Amino acid sequence: MRGVVLHGPGDVRVEEREDPTIQEPTDAVIKIVAACVCGSDLWPYRGADPAENQLMGHEYVGVVEQIGDDVKTVKPGDFVVGSFVISDNTCPICTNGYQSRCVNGIFVDGQIGTQAEYARIPYADGTLVATPGQPDDDLIPSLLAASDVLGTGWFGAVAAEVGPGKSVAVVGDGAVGLMGVLAAKQLGAEKIIAMSRHESRQKLAKEFGATDIVEERGEAGVEKIKELTDGLGADSVIEAVGTQESMMQAVQSTRPGGHVGYVGVSHDVLLNGLELFFGLVHLHGGPAPVRRFLPELIQLIWDRKIEPGKVFDLELPLDRAAEGYQAMDERKAIKVLLKP
Amino acid sequence: MRGVVLHGPGDVRVEEREDPTIQEPTDAVIKIVAACVCGSDLWPYRGADPAENQLMGHEYVGVVEQIGDDVKTVKPGDFVVGSFVISDNTCPICTNGYQSRCVNGIFVDGQIGTQAEYARIPYADGTLVATPGQPDDDLIPSLLAASDVLGTGWFGAVAAEVGPGKSVAVVGDGAVGLMGVLAAKQLGAEKIIAMSRHESRQKLAKEFGATDIVEERGEAGVEKIKELTDGLGADSVIEAVGTQESMMQAVQSTRPGGHVGYVGVSHDVLLNGLELFFGLVHLHGGPAPVRRFLPELIQLIWDRKIEPGKVFDLELPLDRAAEGYQAMDERKAIKVLLKP
Repeated sequence: MRGVVLHGPGDVRVEEREDPTIQEPTDAVIKIVAACVCGSDLWPYRGADPAENQLMGHEYVGVVEQIGDDVKTVKPGDFVVGSFVISDNTCPICTNGYQSRCVNGIFVDGQIGTQAEYARIPYADGTLVATPGQPDDDLIPSLLAASDVLGTGWFGAVAAEVGPGKSVAVVGDGAVGLMGVLAAKQLGAEKIIAMSRHESRQKLAKEFGATDIVEERGEAGVEKIKELTDGLGADSVIEAVGTQESMMQAVQSTRPGGHVGYVGVSHDVLLNGLELFFGLVHLHGGPAPVRRFLPELIQLIWDRKIEPGKVFDLELPLDRAAEGYQAMDERKAIKVLLKP
Repeated sequence: MRGVVLHGPGDVRVEEREDPTIQEPTDAVIKIVAACVCGSDLWPYRGADPAENQLMGHEYVGVVEQIGDDVKTVKPGDFVVGSFVISDNTCPICTNGYQSRCVNGIFVDGQIGTQAEYARIPYADGTLVATPGQPDDDLIPSLLAASDVLGTGWFGAVAAEVGPGKSVAVVGDGAVGLMGVLAAKQLGAEKIIAMSRHESRQKLAKEFGATDIVEERGEAGVEKIKELTDGLGADSVIEAVGTQESMMQAVQSTRPGGHVGYVGVSHDVLLNGLELFFGLVHLHGGPAPVRRFLPELIQLIWDRKIEPGKVFDLELPLDRAAEGYQAMDERKAIKVLLKP
């Protein structure tokens, strides 16, 4: 089968790889229907994370081809959405809702790589969720979004304790930030402030439910958020970038007692203890336990109540994956869908 | 009146200061019945925080002498417990339970200084809570503890989401850590692990409800906590020191999805973003909103259900305050009570 391998910074190749097979009785092999390029794929692509012959891709929807003897909840022919961390969904960490740190967890990225024609999914019952039936084509981008960016933005909102009547600020206007806006709307937030300087992303943020746009950053950004929140700062702030600047933007934009939900993969971030201490905010985040939210998100998409698939603004065949990475790197595309 | 002034590192003096008077209609003047030396007083005492002619003391119980025209909930003659941050208890931050960041907040320490005979308490209604009557003498140390160390340890436990059936680790065996143990017990924790190397403090921790003692620190300490919690880490960890080592001890001892409540005043702490990210823990803490808990804590003490006053192991007249600082600095005393 064909699949994407990153050989080094900027060096994306689609290569022949061995066809996956069932190895454990809890495995499934799925035929990938759609995969995509993630903002986090850009870290190794840009050389910020090391990568050498890395199997790329961790977002996926597909059709089950084969299952191991112990798999109970999905069967060949099922259309499935999976999360970007393999989880057994039965350990104490999973049952507490933190499947992304399952004691048997495996990161799909690097170890499985779903920018490919097929993938072996360990712990299929704990990782995959079948859709209610075969989806219409137009639902596929939204179901694919559930696999990571929607689930991650959703977790950011949940981690930030977004709820009815609350004010929410979203730091970052990439796909995850935009999904954070969508999640905040669904979770009943009253004021949703998107921090964005890009017109096309501002427009999408508004479509997803943003009530206010703030273009300022740094101290000016904090001041603007405070102006919009009775001088106090937002109740909830979703951080969806992962840099020192974005993290401090989030912490400082949150009112005392408020909540920061951070889902941008932290790079070279150092948080000052004293500033955190006197900020008196709640901080929670990390790799999203997408599996916790998948059943609910799939249903919302199936019922056409949300359309997260709008974040995809470029679709390419798998063979042209390199173009997709480039478009995202140059911010010419928000998010790229790849079809094997 | 007499009061404690810190002139520089190690230089504690009891000096004549002006008698406080009512200045605003929301003020009260109280006669201090008991005050104490806080672990956080040691930061400036040791030169780790700058101090020059600083009015010391922020924990206090006393009797109301005079009130301003607008004060409604306390009256002359009332025995009162106050929190270490002045709060109006009516602003949106206060009503959300974060009185230590009240929009009109004033830190008692440095600006009022309750290691003294009298103190002016602004926003008396929002800061002070009257006891149900005049307390027996033996209740006074416990009521005094409610003013900070108990309230702070309690907040640490609440911030760490301690609850029935949970496992809790407490980093730090100072007065606040010991109060964290007491709070964890009251809040229904099943396993309470006190990290301590000092026999007398271990003993007190057990009296307050610790079920296990861990003497190891650093990686060995983390391993020990994991051994005691099915290999996962504690559900809740209370951090009650404020150093880089103690903070990392807390974060690493917490299971994914678990909660760190940190109440040690952070000094030179830098948290690595990537480690936090993949740790997937909740982090919350800062200056404790003691006022939120005062009514409940006073009642528990009044009903003799808890005896936090046991943390005081040295009582001195105010005039000998310098000895009290020295005893705490040298860890010869856990906590020193001062009587004006």
